[in-house]
Amino acid sequence: MVISVNLPSGGYDITVKRGCLQEAGALLPLDRRVLVVTDSGVPEEYAQTVAAQCKTAVVARIPQGEENKTVATWESLCRTMLENGFDRGDCVVAVGGGVVGDMAGFAAATYMRGIDFYNIPTTVLAQVDSSIGGKTAVDLGGIKNIVGAFYQPKAVLIDPDVLQTLPSRQIANGLAEAVKMALAFDATLFALFESGDPMEKIEEIIIRSLQCKKTVVEEDERESGVRRVLNFGHTIGHAIESTSAFSYLHGECVALGMLPMCSDAVRARLLPVLQKLNLPTDYAGNMAAMAKAAAHDKKCNGDTVTVVTVPTVGTYVLEKWTSAQLTARMEVYDG
Amino acid sequence: MVISVNLPSGGYDITVKRGCLQEAGALLPLDRRVLVVTDSGVPEEYAQTVAAQCKTAVVARIPQGEENKTVATWESLCRTMLENGFDRGDCVVAVGGGVVGDMAGFAAATYMRGIDFYNIPTTVLAQVDSSIGGKTAVDLGGIKNIVGAFYQPKAVLIDPDVLQTLPSRQIANGLAEAVKMALAFDATLFALFESGDPMEKIEEIIIRSLQCKKTVVEEDERESGVRRVLNFGHTIGHAIESTSAFSYLHGECVALGMLPMCSDAVRARLLPVLQKLNLPTDYAGNMAAMAKAAAHDKKCNGDTVTVVTVPTVGTYVLEKWTSAQLTARMEVYDG
Repeated sequence: MVISVNLPSGGYDITVKRGCLQEAGALLPLDRRVLVVTDSGVPEEYAQTVAAQCKTAVVARIPQGEENKTVATWESLCRTMLENGFDRGDCVVAVGGGVVGDMAGFAAATYMRGIDFYNIPTTVLAQVDSSIGGKTAVDLGGIKNIVGAFYQPKAVLIDPDVLQTLPSRQIANGLAEAVKMALAFDATLFALFESGDPMEKIEEIIIRSLQCKKTVVEEDERESGVRRVLNFGHTIGHAIESTSAFSYLHGECVALGMLPMCSDAVRARLLPVLQKLNLPTDYAGNMAAMAKAAAHDKKCNGDTVTVVTVPTVGTYVLEKWTSAQLTARMEVYDG
Repeated sequence: MVISVNLPSGGYDITVKRGCLQEAGALLPLDRRVLVVTDSGVPEEYAQTVAAQCKTAVVARIPQGEENKTVATWESLCRTMLENGFDRGDCVVAVGGGVVGDMAGFAAATYMRGIDFYNIPTTVLAQVDSSIGGKTAVDLGGIKNIVGAFYQPKAVLIDPDVLQTLPSRQIANGLAEAVKMALAFDATLFALFESGDPMEKIEEIIIRSLQCKKTVVEEDERESGVRRVLNFGHTIGHAIESTSAFSYLHGECVALGMLPMCSDAVRARLLPVLQKLNLPTDYAGNMAAMAKAAAHDKKCNGDTVTVVTVPTVGTYVLEKWTSAQLTARMEVYDG
């Protein structure tokens, strides 16, 4: 299955295929210097499998975790390329989750003002969501993704087989973003979560999720309008993420962040799905700190925050809320 | 005089007008949070004049000099915006020379993945050259501009009156880039340098130089082809700049870098112009180190370096040279 993303700045193909990690050299132009970026949480053989298919590979294995998504790590990737004589014709390949993809992409976006970037996501989260859309970034001052660039990959390879090595908490973490796409855009996708084991339908879930995201990204590459809908669950989600010192995973925060943004009827269907996936449904953190963090969120424009609410499964509404409205909605966690 | 630059990624206007620093608030949309970036070498009143015309200005005054064009300084600009609550609707204004413009532009390009950027260049070098073209960057590992982005300003204001406070060495430094444009594109512009005092014709020199650069940039926004011609004098120039620990100014390096790239006849006309401007014409540094640095230059593609040569005034040729050819041509300095 190949999904083509068409953008003003140049399109690219997403290949979804079991075993395609072994075909990276045939599917991507790796006959040059390649910085393969991975992290300590990704099985080493994945990056090695890709490296073995490059003309000249340099593997950069960074420590796992959002706390390493820093300016310093990005700088170290750029220095590695410099020390290995990378020039404008060389490229970067990310082999890992969203953190790896965000940082590798930002290094590719900025090294020599931009070299080719390829993404081979190895987590559910990255496969259903973060590997497409062209958002690259690092964190700064405790705020997620505050410096970065819109920079599109030249291609994305998605191999569902690599998900077999993922811990179940990481699988649920990624499925939360697929649930997000389902709630806002695709009632059929949501139904896939309501019956049986979602992992038995993972290819269909990945493909449907990517098709939802593709439609939005094609309309609004740089998040100046409709793309904000992808932030459904993220305004409160990001706030929980930063005020809880990253003790929750991103998808867990999104799961929590969606609950206050749904109508009562939608929330009644969402709760059992989150429970089946072992995603959190209750939050007891500092609500005042969280509301303050939410107001600092980059979707904030002056005194109000643009939020996305879901009145019925498969539809969404954009609304402007004050931080008082945000705080008030968090009462759903007391239920 | 307004020069409109038309680009696929969105065009912008360059206003060249004596006294326009005082009109910044009328000419630019500064009714928001504005990070005014300047450096310790720029008269403080220039940034203050701009700041006074903003709704909410934060002035970041960085230490002068290429050695401060670092990842750390760029990061500090981003942190300043974060600490002052800048959001996507806010903007950055550079008030200074090329170093200020490059770093302020890179901060604007990356903060929240890109906010509006305006450039008010205050040196001859920045007014005739670096303020347009959308190149932003910082240095890393001793290599100039190795990380950065192509990011266009929303507008450029050029006030020739601000040049009155420049030391004569800085004026000559900037005129070297105008001489570069003249040699490669515009014989009439070159003639302006051959008779009388160029500073008496500075507005004409600025406008003609910008028109040369505009034509090239419009054809090739991201330096994938013809734009390489703007690197005339820069392959050896950058190498001198990095191997001499930045003891020469950029334009002085370009002056030196042009000499080996001209035909004998062109060099015979260029030498008296450089001498009139008190620009260097002889170089006695380590030629081997310099050739090695030139081969690391980002215009290098594998084993050869693309160089620009000028056979007759107002014309250019692109050639691929080996580092041995580069070294051989440096014999012109022994004359």
